[in-house]
Amino acid sequence: MTDSNGIVALLTDFGVRDHYVGVVKGVILSVNPDARLVDISHEVSAQDVAGAYFLLQNAYGWFPRGTLFVAIVDPGVGTERAVLFVETSRHFFLAPDNGLVSFLQTSDSVRSIRRVTNRKLMLPGISSTFHGRDIFAPVAGHLSMGLDPSKVGPPVKAMRTLRTSAPRVEREGVVVGEVASVDTFGNLITNIPVGKLLEADGVEVRVGRKSLRGLSETYARRPKGTLVAVPGSGGMLEIAVSGGSAAKSLGAKPGDIVRVRLST
Amino acid sequence: MTDSNGIVALLTDFGVRDHYVGVVKGVILSVNPDARLVDISHEVSAQDVAGAYFLLQNAYGWFPRGTLFVAIVDPGVGTERAVLFVETSRHFFLAPDNGLVSFLQTSDSVRSIRRVTNRKLMLPGISSTFHGRDIFAPVAGHLSMGLDPSKVGPPVKAMRTLRTSAPRVEREGVVVGEVASVDTFGNLITNIPVGKLLEADGVEVRVGRKSLRGLSETYARRPKGTLVAVPGSGGMLEIAVSGGSAAKSLGAKPGDIVRVRLST
Amino acid sequence: MTDSNGIVALLTDFGVRDHYVGVVKGVILSVNPDARLVDISHEVSAQDVAGAYFLLQNAYGWFPRGTLFVAIVDPGVGTERAVLFVETSRHFFLAPDNGLVSFLQTSDSVRSIRRVTNRKLMLPGISSTFHGRDIFAPVAGHLSMGLDPSKVGPPVKAMRTLRTSAPRVEREGVVVGEVASVDTFGNLITNIPVGKLLEADGVEVRVGRKSLRGLSETYARRPKGTLVAVPGSGGMLEIAVSGGSAAKSLGAKPGDIVRVRLST
Repeated sequence: MTDSNGIVALLTDFGVRDHYVGVVKGVILSVNPDARLVDISHEVSAQDVAGAYFLLQNAYGWFPRGTLFVAIVDPGVGTERAVLFVETSRHFFLAPDNGLVSFLQTSDSVRSIRRVTNRKLMLPGISSTFHGRDIFAPVAGHLSMGLDPSKVGPPVKAMRTLRTSAPRVEREGVVVGEVASVDTFGNLITNIPVGKLLEADGVEVRVGRKSLRGLSETYARRPKGTLVAVPGSGGMLEIAVSGGSAAKSLGAKPGDIVRVRLST
Repeated sequence: MTDSNGIVALLTDFGVRDHYVGVVKGVILSVNPDARLVDISHEVSAQDVAGAYFLLQNAYGWFPRGTLFVAIVDPGVGTERAVLFVETSRHFFLAPDNGLVSFLQTSDSVRSIRRVTNRKLMLPGISSTFHGRDIFAPVAGHLSMGLDPSKVGPPVKAMRTLRTSAPRVEREGVVVGEVASVDTFGNLITNIPVGKLLEADGVEVRVGRKSLRGLSETYARRPKGTLVAVPGSGGMLEIAVSGGSAAKSLGAKPGDIVRVRLST
Repeated sequence: MTDSNGIVALLTDFGVRDHYVGVVKGVILSVNPDARLVDISHEVSAQDVAGAYFLLQNAYGWFPRGTLFVAIVDPGVGTERAVLFVETSRHFFLAPDNGLVSFLQTSDSVRSIRRVTNRKLMLPGISSTFHGRDIFAPVAGHLSMGLDPSKVGPPVKAMRTLRTSAPRVEREGVVVGEVASVDTFGNLITNIPVGKLLEADGVEVRVGRKSLRGLSETYARRPKGTLVAVPGSGGMLEIAVSGGSAAKSLGAKPGDIVRVRLST
């Protein structure tokens, strides 16, 4: 069993303008005054479960053993959708059962999936609009103090899966994927794993009307304004503009097609 | 007497781009290296005392006993306006005397209100433009270490009151209030307590040119795009669009009239 | 020697939307679970080394002795630019060698400057695009636990200098400087030290087509909308609009000329 390390990492679409994040932190600290709170992001677009999935999938592996992740992007709040608790060999997760943490399904490290049902761990009155405060926060407080996971509720067999698009091999040597995310710098992060591309003799990448040849090692080595394809820090192909924003230069956005041709 | 729990919760209009919040945290930690800092929000609109009042009023009750709130939205910085310290039966507050914490006046939990005057608790040089750094932060550092409140300065009898608009009964069964705040999701949070509405047989809500019947329990149960009235998590009537933004759909903003007709 | 106090203060251009800041924090906490993380800002404009320089220069002095600053605005990531570790008589700094911390050069408190080269302190695989995660974060984790600075790498004699514009005396009694930064409130922070201005009998400040006479002590004492010149909290002349935004009123931006005429 993994022991809690007292760290609670938060990911929500609550925004940093309102009081919602503060309230969630206040409730966690009311249960466990020693919880150590870390923000991953609260600026996920409103109700964008896929956006939260992407951020959490890329972030969680870098946190220490025993960290509890509380991920709340929850368009179904107040309906019968379950709140899930997932324990892996290294981490803990609390999230609505809407696919947000379904990247864990392909991992063999999952120890248990539970539905959070124990009312004693929640606030006495549960609103229909703010389960972050009334359910997630107090349950997180208890878990961060080392509560036995079996206390949160009964095991369930499966969680809802978020449909994400995987790249496909169009014909030999041609992979078609898409822009999965655009980051703050305007870099286009694709859903195409960079592994095989590194083995090829030549690579041609096409996005929109632009195409470019070869992988660069960094954003910076080319003249300012050059469009480059880079092995991204999360293991996926990224398209960037040296010293600029690929999203702006190309007018690109999530979902745009990216086509890679390999020569060997 | 309430003892400090070492938590200092911050609410300002300093924004997260500049160095101001970092400087305030640095000074608090210089006095009390063990202070535990929690952000409520730093994205209150510049000099919007009423906006800060709304956020703090909705947030403070969820924090553990012994938390110190430092609220700095201070258009009068450098003038003779007082810096107040308020102790309630559960919490502590530092704020300028401009009405920011005047929601505490209607609470019977206030133990004492003091004017912060003890120069020994402040930085040696006090600027006329950044009392957050020179007064609030060091005083907060000392208070979070358990300083006796009587040391900050003499008691005062009253604080300035922020005029907030209360809903009024226009005629029997008709309540007229307004939009008090618009949150990140575009939900319209009114100043109309939801209590009595829940007891009525029927409710009709009118905002701008739109009207709707009945209270929904959640944002989510209606078809996407439906305008709904919801009992908000803070106890006030909220107007939302399922899966969307009521503020955008209705072009609504704080101050807009909301009229509720009850049938019994 | 200064001992680490366990506080790690972060300044980046990573933004708060993406997972990058969370990942950096996760890696620091993986090395040192007791590190205490404080955000200065993550909203520096992308690759704006001068903007980060300004914020850090204004913030670091307010943090307690033993604080480690990790400043990552790094357009040259993945190239041969060095990662620097600087120890002063009070603080520690990790930053790319691009001028970001070159304000320390004019301070006599610098004890040592080192190039960070010890691979044992870094993550096993080092990407070419995310040194924040692979180098800065783990090295920061070790340093915040009290690692002997000599372990990070060999001393170097100099760092790169960021060219910043200093004000100049045009003729006797006339100083010409510029707007160094515009803050969240729209205040124009100039590069003109306020010291000598306070000694003069009269001061006339000109920015764009507007000019004004005399220094105000505060933003607030003049009628709303009045343009005022104020001794700023960082020791520089600031131009503000009482209850408003000087940047908006004047259409001013960083780099705009500010001319001060002194009469004695």
